[in-house]
Amino acid sequence: MNPQDTPQHDKQPTNSAIPSPPATLLVVGTGAVGGFYGAALARAGVQVSTVHRSDADHVRAHGIRIEGLQGDLHFQPHRVFSRVEEIDTPPDYLLVTLKALPDPPVADIIRPAVGPRTVIILLQNGLGVEEPIQRAFPHNEVITALAFVCLQKIAPGTIRHLCHGKITLGHHPAGITPAVRQLDAWFAAGGVPSHMTETPATARWIKLVWNAAFNPVSVLAGDVTTAEILGVPAGEKLVTRIMQEVIDVAQALGHRFSDTLIEDHLRATRSIPPYHTSMALDHLAGRPLETEVILGAALEAARATSVPTPLLEGVYTLMTLLEKSEKRP
Amino acid sequence: MNPQDTPQHDKQPTNSAIPSPPATLLVVGTGAVGGFYGAALARAGVQVSTVHRSDADHVRAHGIRIEGLQGDLHFQPHRVFSRVEEIDTPPDYLLVTLKALPDPPVADIIRPAVGPRTVIILLQNGLGVEEPIQRAFPHNEVITALAFVCLQKIAPGTIRHLCHGKITLGHHPAGITPAVRQLDAWFAAGGVPSHMTETPATARWIKLVWNAAFNPVSVLAGDVTTAEILGVPAGEKLVTRIMQEVIDVAQALGHRFSDTLIEDHLRATRSIPPYHTSMALDHLAGRPLETEVILGAALEAARATSVPTPLLEGVYTLMTLLEKSEKRP
Repeated sequence: MNPQDTPQHDKQPTNSAIPSPPATLLVVGTGAVGGFYGAALARAGVQVSTVHRSDADHVRAHGIRIEGLQGDLHFQPHRVFSRVEEIDTPPDYLLVTLKALPDPPVADIIRPAVGPRTVIILLQNGLGVEEPIQRAFPHNEVITALAFVCLQKIAPGTIRHLCHGKITLGHHPAGITPAVRQLDAWFAAGGVPSHMTETPATARWIKLVWNAAFNPVSVLAGDVTTAEILGVPAGEKLVTRIMQEVIDVAQALGHRFSDTLIEDHLRATRSIPPYHTSMALDHLAGRPLETEVILGAALEAARATSVPTPLLEGVYTLMTLLEKSEKRP
Repeated sequence: MNPQDTPQHDKQPTNSAIPSPPATLLVVGTGAVGGFYGAALARAGVQVSTVHRSDADHVRAHGIRIEGLQGDLHFQPHRVFSRVEEIDTPPDYLLVTLKALPDPPVADIIRPAVGPRTVIILLQNGLGVEEPIQRAFPHNEVITALAFVCLQKIAPGTIRHLCHGKITLGHHPAGITPAVRQLDAWFAAGGVPSHMTETPATARWIKLVWNAAFNPVSVLAGDVTTAEILGVPAGEKLVTRIMQEVIDVAQALGHRFSDTLIEDHLRATRSIPPYHTSMALDHLAGRPLETEVILGAALEAARATSVPTPLLEGVYTLMTLLEKSEKRP
């Protein structure tokens, strides 16, 4: 793994880019991803507060501990909330790291914290997460963020950082704005490898290519790790075929990728320790799964093309049947 | 469901076809299928003995109880063995109802009971079960048998008959012989709808079309019933596509089917009560699965053709990963 890909936890914040008084940012849905990237922004001097559905008391008392690749670190949010409704002053930036589930709508959840000038950053999986937010808040800037990182929440307020960490940022639907540049500078100052893109929608598809293959296969095969999938040639072939279907759909919709995208995804996956995908972790923990935003949305997009997607449909069907059967009384 | 499809448990045996002294038949691997069809042959006057891996003592003492569609019935085998090695006199007919697993080879299991004139009837799932037996016993007649029946072993020596029951018989590799006719007459006399075919290999593919689709989908979707699969349009579409891949392979190998095969399978499946496939029952019980003989063998056959089988390969890969992961320590 390239050392530039890992956060530099011991690097001192570069404060030159930070306005005074400090910018305020609120993390909504502070799980492993929100805690990890919120901590990075705090290290850069941003005044970061957090909303936690379940761990607010713990985090208020003890902060968030990140067991990092180069040692542990501690992050004490400026303020800790258990509900978005408790927010009195809208933040400059709102970082959404909620799981992307159909219900309740994310716009409804964040509405109490969105002020007229709040920049909304959507750091979520799947496709189509930006449109409902932009519709709900037509005058607010929406930024798409994509994380390539392996994190696991191992206890209340405790996150284990396993590998990678790079974040990709772009203005929705396209372009690089001053707010994007500001965030990029803060992430870099906080030790996170950050990258800006003019085409965040394409970046979203690049991540979806991986997610649509590895997430359902890992769950259907018995909540196995990426290493178990790639440990047999048939496993690599299956994820490769699903990735190719997703690429074919995205290309039919005008997105352009490197010819080595599948190869790159496979190499990056082989370079990490045996890893449970987020969907396998959610499944093992009995939490709702991002089946719709990852697979359902990809198939919805495929319907606008004539690209055949038998395997994507197959794993989507198996996932929906599985989820339905697990909810049976 | 056509009433002719169900066994007539209250019908008196027709003894005219039975030679004197009675023919002897040994059931090897007497689970639900062996107990059910062994009982039918006994009703027809055949002297039926059974081999049980685990229930021999129970069956010796209490016989086999079949909770039937038209009331319960009892079957006391002539002799009950716990190992094939205990057989002293080879039977006229040997009915193999062992699960079709790669190991140990069926030929090795049955060898102690096969005499020079023993007719071997293979009532097993999958493809390619006859060839190793014919190679091991080149001078013995091998008969292919296929059951379309829903049975469940619910306790030691106790079988529940849920639906259907028809058996299809043919000489391996093709043709109808006197032994096939004799068995057909006995099954009919014992109340089982029986059917003879000149092309048992095609009949085996017809059953495989169903098994290759419903078995893996039922397991991967969370050990769901046939009704749960067909309860959503996407579930019907998925099994239909897998069935079509198997049909395409078999047709490329020269087999000919009715144009309505998929439709017929779907209709027959809809006509039965919610049913766990044999693979889902095995999975729920933690028993080994017939993945290789059903899916592996179908893909092995597909390799001799140029037919694309992405879904068959996909569910095969998921099943092998699942089985491997469930055996992890």
